[in-house]
Parts: sequence; structure tokens; C-alpha cells
Amino acid sequence: MYNQDIIQRTRSRKGAFPMIFYNSFNRDCRDRIGAIVVGSSETLRIQITDVPVEAVAIEIFADGQDHKDAQRVRMQAAADNWYEGKLTPPTTGLYFYRFVITTAQQSLYYAPKSKTYGGDGEVFREADTGYYQLTVLDHEETLPEWYRHAIFYHIFVDRFNNGNADGQVNHPKPNSFIYGTHEDLPYYVKDANGQIVRWDFYGGNLAGIEQKLPYLQKLGITALFLSPIFAARSNHRYDTADYEKVDSMLGTLADFDHFLAAVHQAGMHVILDGVFNHVGADSKYFDLYHTYEPRNGATDSPNSPYYDWFTFTQYPEKYNSWWGVGDLPTINKDSTSFHHYIADPQTGIVSYWTKRGVDGWRLDVADELEDSFIGQIRTAADQYPDRVLIGEVWEDASNKIAYGNRHHYLEGGMLQAVMNYPLRNQLVDLVNGNLSVDDWVQAGLTLKEHYPQSVFQNNFNNVGTHDTERILTSLDNDTKKLALLINLFFAVPGVPCIYYGDEVGVTGGKDPDNRRFFPWGKENNEIQGIYADAIHRRQTDPALSNDANFIPFYGYRWGGIWRRLTNADGSIQDALVIFNPNEIPILADIRQLHTDYLTVDQVAFLHQHIQTTPIAPYEFQWLTPDVI
Amino acid sequence: MYNQDIIQRTRSRKGAFPMIFYNSFNRDCRDRIGAIVVGSSETLRIQITDVPVEAVAIEIFADGQDHKDAQRVRMQAAADNWYEGKLTPPTTGLYFYRFVITTAQQSLYYAPKSKTYGGDGEVFREADTGYYQLTVLDHEETLPEWYRHAIFYHIFVDRFNNGNADGQVNHPKPNSFIYGTHEDLPYYVKDANGQIVRWDFYGGNLAGIEQKLPYLQKLGITALFLSPIFAARSNHRYDTADYEKVDSMLGTLADFDHFLAAVHQAGMHVILDGVFNHVGADSKYFDLYHTYEPRNGATDSPNSPYYDWFTFTQYPEKYNSWWGVGDLPTINKDSTSFHHYIADPQTGIVSYWTKRGVDGWRLDVADELEDSFIGQIRTAADQYPDRVLIGEVWEDASNKIAYGNRHHYLEGGMLQAVMNYPLRNQLVDLVNGNLSVDDWVQAGLTLKEHYPQSVFQNNFNNVGTHDTERILTSLDNDTKKLALLINLFFAVPGVPCIYYGDEVGVTGGKDPDNRRFFPWGKENNEIQGIYADAIHRRQTDPALSNDANFIPFYGYRWGGIWRRLTNADGSIQDALVIFNPNEIPILADIRQLHTDYLTVDQVAFLHQHIQTTPIAPYEFQWLTPDVI
Repeated sequence: MYNQDIIQRTRSRKGAFPMIFYNSFNRDCRDRIGAIVVGSSETLRIQITDVPVEAVAIEIFADGQDHKDAQRVRMQAAADNWYEGKLTPPTTGLYFYRFVITTAQQSLYYAPKSKTYGGDGEVFREADTGYYQLTVLDHEETLPEWYRHAIFYHIFVDRFNNGNADGQVNHPKPNSFIYGTHEDLPYYVKDANGQIVRWDFYGGNLAGIEQKLPYLQKLGITALFLSPIFAARSNHRYDTADYEKVDSMLGTLADFDHFLAAVHQAGMHVILDGVFNHVGADSKYFDLYHTYEPRNGATDSPNSPYYDWFTFTQYPEKYNSWWGVGDLPTINKDSTSFHHYIADPQTGIVSYWTKRGVDGWRLDVADELEDSFIGQIRTAADQYPDRVLIGEVWEDASNKIAYGNRHHYLEGGMLQAVMNYPLRNQLVDLVNGNLSVDDWVQAGLTLKEHYPQSVFQNNFNNVGTHDTERILTSLDNDTKKLALLINLFFAVPGVPCIYYGDEVGVTGGKDPDNRRFFPWGKENNEIQGIYADAIHRRQTDPALSNDANFIPFYGYRWGGIWRRLTNADGSIQDALVIFNPNEIPILADIRQLHTDYLTVDQVAFLHQHIQTTPIAPYEFQWLTPDVI
Repeated sequence: MYNQDIIQRTRSRKGAFPMIFYNSFNRDCRDRIGAIVVGSSETLRIQITDVPVEAVAIEIFADGQDHKDAQRVRMQAAADNWYEGKLTPPTTGLYFYRFVITTAQQSLYYAPKSKTYGGDGEVFREADTGYYQLTVLDHEETLPEWYRHAIFYHIFVDRFNNGNADGQVNHPKPNSFIYGTHEDLPYYVKDANGQIVRWDFYGGNLAGIEQKLPYLQKLGITALFLSPIFAARSNHRYDTADYEKVDSMLGTLADFDHFLAAVHQAGMHVILDGVFNHVGADSKYFDLYHTYEPRNGATDSPNSPYYDWFTFTQYPEKYNSWWGVGDLPTINKDSTSFHHYIADPQTGIVSYWTKRGVDGWRLDVADELEDSFIGQIRTAADQYPDRVLIGEVWEDASNKIAYGNRHHYLEGGMLQAVMNYPLRNQLVDLVNGNLSVDDWVQAGLTLKEHYPQSVFQNNFNNVGTHDTERILTSLDNDTKKLALLINLFFAVPGVPCIYYGDEVGVTGGKDPDNRRFFPWGKENNEIQGIYADAIHRRQTDPALSNDANFIPFYGYRWGGIWRRLTNADGSIQDALVIFNPNEIPILADIRQLHTDYLTVDQVAFLHQHIQTTPIAPYEFQWLTPDVI
């Protein structure tokens, strides 16, 4: 039921001789936009008009193969100058494809315009082109229902709330600093060599989070993602000292259980930050300062049970560490005893805490973990129902190469979602005028094309974390920009995760400025309202659920998103967003609309409702079904 | 009653041709060792043997005069080749003198051997010599009895004790750090340019001191010297923000009054640190950050009542500050409004707090204050009985020239004592083997010669402050050295002041390491015993009181001190110290003894008791009257 007129017009605008059409985002060309499961087939269709074709083939090769060894799958002619070819990839992993059109005179190649995006391609006369990516899964992941409908809240635990009645900080660490007031700006205490010499704490703790559950619930939050909570020396606690202990500044094990019970009592969930690539130098495992009893650390003796966890280039002084940070000795990737310690289904750390009630894990620096280890962690977590495993990956996680190895995070049995930093970058660039709406749509759909549907629909979205600038700061403190960005954030698929304090206008540059203490009593109410409204819309409109389809489109400098949910009874719920990411008003001239991905009804609606009224700068129009 | 035999032998050891004897420490040559009061006369005696003398004169000139304009006072011949001359200086201040001996052939000059010490001189054939100093007072100061018999304790207030039951720190300042534990080592939080960006606090307070009064009393402490307690931004509080307020981290005004009452209730006294040379940039007076209400600071407006307190070279950005530290704008020395604010007898700061009950003041950086301003402060303090005014002067305070001007601190009406850093340096150097016993005796007696008796006998002695290394650290953590040094410290005249924590073995290098928190519960008991014994001896033996005379002497690498108190009834109390500041045993061979300053009885006692038994390394022998 596509509006062929508009599609044709679109094509003709773009098309040059020869007239060939393939768009990996278009259901005329592929049955789906997204990864497929191994053993299934995918039919690709390309339309070739006004070209005297002798043969058309899909040229495809598997990841790791030389492209010169690519196979050719012959395509069959069909009506209206379409050619069809069916791919049945034999293995999981990535495949790369393009089209080869043989004419009497020459071979033409049809391939993506750029290596950055899928979607529309173009004709190349030379063989040196890019390829479309086809992701082949072992199986499509299922994700817990609670997770799929969650609104997450990411808490940097030291910086959220102190739950002690007297405001005392629990068990300050030796050689650390406590901020004089919660309003102080974070500061790294470094020596002349730039080494951190004292860690700085505000004293947020688990009881503090527990006390604020009503606040979070009122905001619409249903799940928490906590920065690391195990014993460690630093304020961020990515330098684990003991995986078996809650950091004493945060509370006791009993406090943790109490917190967990309160979270679940509130119908909420919580995931922990699993930091399994390195430990702290000052840990019971490494014990660089020889302070642990018994002296069992790797630097205490080569007979340490932890000795093989690490890689010493000169024992005990020189060892491999994370990005050369001596405070974070990295784990030897071949250490089965470490893998066992963390991921053993019965006795491992993951099992211990998951059994205790945590609802999932976010794996820190997943890029630096072996896929097999991630699989073991997943297996351990999966012993307990409805747990989720998410990974920290900053780029397109379907094709990430780290340290020379392709990762297979998303192909089944490993990660169920990743931190969606690409979305953050796109939204920030879009709203700041550094990414065209066109490119934003291409970028978004390229992720949809590369990712399993379960991941694209349920990815762990953010617009800021403890590792980025604060979103308001990234938008030059412009509340209008923020309102548009946040509304878009809640209008795209995925599981939104709010970085604590963003919802009340906390600002800050990069680490450590992005880790200020929550400004209790000094919340920005206007920004709080923006978040509350967007969350409320998200939670009340089924078309914004992660079950609904996502169809972004764009016109001249403006854009839109159509969300469509097909219910079990076949009824349909639509939701339409129109937005203007510019600082000037834009007329949503429907003649400029790129509507490849829209239905006739959708296009008709657009014709009827939006083409005559300019959209104000940074306006976000929310067109509910009753309007439509 | 001097032992002429021994004196003669001593002289003959030193003497070369011609045989001339004058020793400014020797009562054969002067009636006293010390300053004189203007209007009184001082007779000097010089013995000239085997020289065909035509005339002998004292050549003397007043401070500020050209030495070429020196007057000559003819000396009269007396028995035994002595010549006598009487000086009656017409004004207060310093005079410098030497002797001119005219023979048929030439003029000989007798002058101090070095510019460093008085005492023995030598004969010079050229006119370019040093001079002896004669200090002439307006009047000899009297000091409060409580002060003269006090054992002081110097508390860096942030670092001594937190008196809150829950250990909470009162009102931490914005943008400051609180140490995680009291055991942490002090650390300056500086930026890449070396500027302090956050002040660091442990949270000691007035209630904390009050709670420890029993501890201090048990130790034998009778008076406290507190580091600044007025509102300020830093931990040292030398950057006064408001002279009218107790810093809120330390307590309220009521807390201060309670503390003061408790101190007096315990029969103790307390002096404050008066910082009147500069204020904090972040003060109500300067208000560099425009945070005070009302905005009355000098940088808020040129109409500020405080504008003329400061010297702006470019308003408001550039201004004179203490040693170029922008955080400490210096007071314009001509600002009568500042002098009035501080020292007005009715309304001034000094009067306000003195009236409230403080027992005196220590003037910070006295060198940078005008003498006239110091006099005004003294006048204000003297309205209240038994108050004491002490100054921070690091060198010989009788002849200090600062910024081109001679100060007259000690000549009456200004300071009653100064911080005796020269004593600290002498003792440390002596015990570390860097100052011979001979030189130590010369140095000590030179101060006695230059100072008014009241000051020499009652000077504010220390072996360490917040501005020096910890004494134990200066002695390489050698407890034996410390024991000797502390025993000597309590055996010399002056008012001993213990820097908090020294008595329990606190170590530390220079600022900030010398400002560690007091190690409650981890006191070094051995060192505590050393202090307790020395204090007990001091407090129980009248010969060690500041009323007793002080006679140091030395032998070959060893030394001694004779203290002698002549009571009102004419009875005499003696106390004798023998010490060995070497790491090897020394035989106290009496034949090597330099006994210019001893009586026949004293020398006889030395003959009898000590000359045959070696003194152990760093031994301190305390020979009480019953032994003698």
C-alpha cells in the first residue's frame, strides 16, 4: 500500500542515468529492515529501468572472507523491471553485499553511497565500492517485559543522595576527601604529574536512593541502573577492590538487601554495573599496597590464587593496565580462574548477586571482554528469570571490531542491548544543527538495518551518561533545544535511560564535571516538566511502546517520526511527530518530503495537516490519534 | 667570686699577642648581660696586659648614625691592667661599640670576632671591624605572672580535636574538602598553576579543644596559643574574612565564650593569633568575589569604607598582596581607618576580643606591621590587666630590619616577647651536630646580650610551629635526640610553647605536612613521657623558673647549663644540666671547660662530680640540688 507516486517522484529526484532503485530501508526492496536469523532467507529486490540488462546478481561474502571470493546470487526478473534474489546465509555473523548489473557494454555496481549509511545506493562503474551489511543471528533475543517497558534512571551512586538522617558520610575511606557541601563542583585532586592522589566523595549511598524511590516513581522511572557499588577505592568504583562486598560508604549488605526489597516492593527493577575487565590496584586480588589480610594478592606473591588473573611484564612492578592507568590492572583474557570466579553458574559473582535479586547487569567496557566470557556471564544471569544483560559499546554494536577482533554481541546468547551512544550523538548533532534531518534518518535506519529487531526496538538509549557532557551543556544550556531533544528521545524506540539530574537541569562538562551532586531543593522545574510530559506521553501512548514500528522521514530541514503499533486484534495505533531542529521556522512543505517509508494514509495525513503551517524553531508537534 | 684561675687559663688559651680581654658575656667586663634602660649607665671593662697603652676608648655610635661619626669615650685605667669606661646612651634604640687602643705605634681595635655573636672579641689592626650591640630600652617590660610561669600549647585549630559527639564537621565551607579520616596526611589541593583551588579541613573546633583541657592539664599545660579563629576561607584562617566573627566551622560566639570560660575555670589562659597585616580576598573587607551582603568590600566599589585599606595598582584587578599571594591582599600601612578598626581602645577588634576574655595576642608577621601600629595594639590590649602581646619575628628581634626599617619591638611599649625561632634553630642544629656546643653557647648568650632581660627570660620559646618541620622529623625521628632537645628546651629561660602533637611523636615535613591531625588513641607514649618528665621538672624546680639566672658553658664537644635562683630571702637554688649532643660518648674533662660564666662553687662542683665519667651519647644529666 505504498504511495507509489511519491516514491517514484522521490526516486526521480535522486535518479540519474541509469535508473536503478534499491533502498535497504524500503520494504519494496527488502521484507524487513533489520538482521535475520540464520537458516531463514531474505529476498532482495532491485528495480532497473531503462537499462538493457543481461544479468543481475547479488554479490555477497561473509565477514572475514576476501571480497574477491564473494559469491554471486543470480536475481530473477519480475514485473515492473524488478529483479529478485534470495539469500540464505549459512552461518551467523555479518555478510556484506552489493548488486552487479551486467550489460552488454559493462558491469555496473550498485552499492551504498557511503560506508556510513545503508538505505539508498548508487551506481558505480568501478568495482571498488562499499557494501550493504546483512546481520545474521543465531536467534533473535527475547527481553524481559519489565525491561522492554522500562524508563531507566542511571545513578552515579556517590552523587545522588545521602540517606543518613544526620547527613553523615558512611565510613569515609582513608586518604580521601569529602566535599564541603553538595553544591561544590567535582574536582579531581591530582599531583603535578596528573595522577589522582585523593579520591573525592559527596557521600551518596544506597539508603539515599531508597529514600528517593517515591521521587523517581513520581517522575515515571521504573528501573535503576547503578554505577558500581562493590568495594573500591575511588568514587566511581570502577576499580573494584572486592566483588563480594558492597562498598562500606554505600552501606552494608543488609542495607543493600533492604534497598533491593524496596525497589521491588515499588514494582521497580535495578541493574548493576559489572566491571569485569580490570580491578583496582588496591584490591584483594592485586593488593599493590599490601594492605589486605590475608596477603593473597597477585603482587603479594606469585603463589597468589589471583596471580594468573594479571599479566606482569616485570613482576611485580610492571603489569598490563587499562589504558595504561596503573590503578586499574587489566584481567588476563585467558584466565579461566577469573572467568570462573565471575561467571561460574553456581559460585560466581554474577550468580551471587543475581540470585540475591538484581535484575540485570550492564557490562562495563564490553569491547574489552572476550565474546565467550560475555556468553558465560549471560548464561549465569539467565539462570534467574527476567534478567537482562546490556553492554557498554559506544558505536554500532553489530559490527564492532575491537583489538582486531569482530565482536558478535548481538547475534544471540550474549548482549540483549547496548548503550545507545550513537543515538545520543545523532540527537545532539541534529538539534545543534550539525547533522541534517536527512542524515539523522539515514543514521537511525542504518542502525535498524544492522541490528536485530529486538535490539533496535529495545536498545538501552541515553542522551548522556557519566562519560559524556551533561545533555543541557551539550545543547548550550538552551532549554528549547533540550525540550526538542528529550521529546525525540522519548519518541524513538528503545529503553530510555535518564542520567540522574538531567531531568532537573544539571549542567556540566566532561568528567568530573558531569558528576555533580543532585541539586535537591534547587531543581529546575521547567526542565522537570519537559521530562515529566515526555515520560507521561511515552507511558500512555501505546504507539510509543517498543512494540510499535518506527518510521522516520524528513523534508527540507524538518523531520518527522511515525510510530505504528499493530495490536493483537489487528487494530492499529498511530502516533506522529513533526519537528523542526532549526533556529528558524520551517514550512513543512509536503512536496519536499522524502516518504519512502510511509504509507498512503500517512502521506495523505501529512498532506492534510501540516503542509501549510510553518513549524516554529525547535518545535515538537505531537499529533495524537484523535488529531489524526 | 669568679674562679680567676680558670678564667685566666681560658683567656690564655685564646689569647695571642697583644693580650687583651673583653667578653660581653662576662660580668668582669659588663655589669650585666643584656639591654639597659635609657638614662642608666653601663660600665664596660677591658683588661689589657703586656701592651704599652697610650689611651683606651670606647667608640660608640647610635643606630642610623654613620660609624665615622662615632663618639669616643675615654676609659680610665684601674687595677690589674683593667680599663673602665661608662656609657650613658641618651636615647632608646641600638648602639654599636668597640674599643680603640692607642699605642705609640698604632691604633688597635677590639671588636667581636664575627658579626654573628657577641662575647669574646679579638684585636684588629684595621679599622674595618664589627661592633658589639648595646640595646637601650625606654623601659623594661613587666610580664603577667601567669605568662611568665606558663607552659603553652600551640594549637592549629582545624587539626586538634572535633568536639561534636557525632564527629560531624560544623558548617563545611563551600568548595572545600573534608578529609576522609583523621589519619589522612594533609594535602594542598592545587591546580596545574600551583594555585590552591580547594581548602582542606579535618574539622577541629573550639568544643574539641574544650574537651581536651583535662588532657592538656594533665600534661602540665597552663596556656593555649590558638591559630586564627576568626571567619576565613582557608584551614589556617590567616586569610581573615571577618574579624568580628568566630569561624562557623569552629563554633558560634557562644561556643567561644563557653570555651573561654572553661579555659579560665581550669586556671588556664589563652592567646589568639592576631593577623593584622592582610585579610582574605574573600572577605567582607575586600570582597573579591562579590559575595558579601551588603556589597561593601573594597573591590565592590571605590566608595567602600574599606577602599583605603588596600593599595590598588589597577582597580580592582591589581592590588598589593602578601608575598604576591592574590588571596591575601595586604593592608595599606598608612590606613588610619584600618588601625582604628583594629586598635581603637573602645571599638577596635583587639579591645572587643580582649574584653571578652582573651589573655593576649600573638601578632602575625609583626615584621610587616608599623611599630606605631603595634604600639596602638599594645595600648588597646593593656586596658585589660595581665594581657600579653607577643610577636612573630623569626630572627634576633632586637635588631630586626624589615623593608629597610629598623624595628623597635622590644624597647618598651610594643612586644613583650617574640616567637623564639632562633632558639629552635640552635637546638636543632646543636643536637643534629650542625652547631658546636661552643657556638650554641655564644648564640644563646648573644641573644641574652641583645635582649631586655624581661624578654630573654620570658621569650616565647618553641621547637616547632605550623611554619616549621615537626621537631621529631627535624631530628631524623631519633627519639634520643628528641629527648635531649626537649630537656634542653625546658632547661633554658623563656616560656615554652609546645606545638600540638609534638608531645606524642607527630612527625611531618614542612607545611602542610606539619599540620596533621592529632593522633588521638595512637599517641607515642615514650615521647609523651619525655615531655611529661621535662614539664614536671620545669614546674617543680624553682631554679628552672624564669626568675632564675641562666649560665650556659661548654667543654670539648659537651656542654652544661647552670640555673641559679636567688630567692627573696637571699637563699639560692641551683640546678645543673650536663649534656652531650654527640652520637658518641664524651668524657666531660673539666680541663677543657670554658667557665667564664661560672662561679668558683660551680666549677668546684663540676670538678667533683662529672669529670671522670663519660657522658653517653645524647645524654642529659639533671643534677638536682640534693645531688649537688
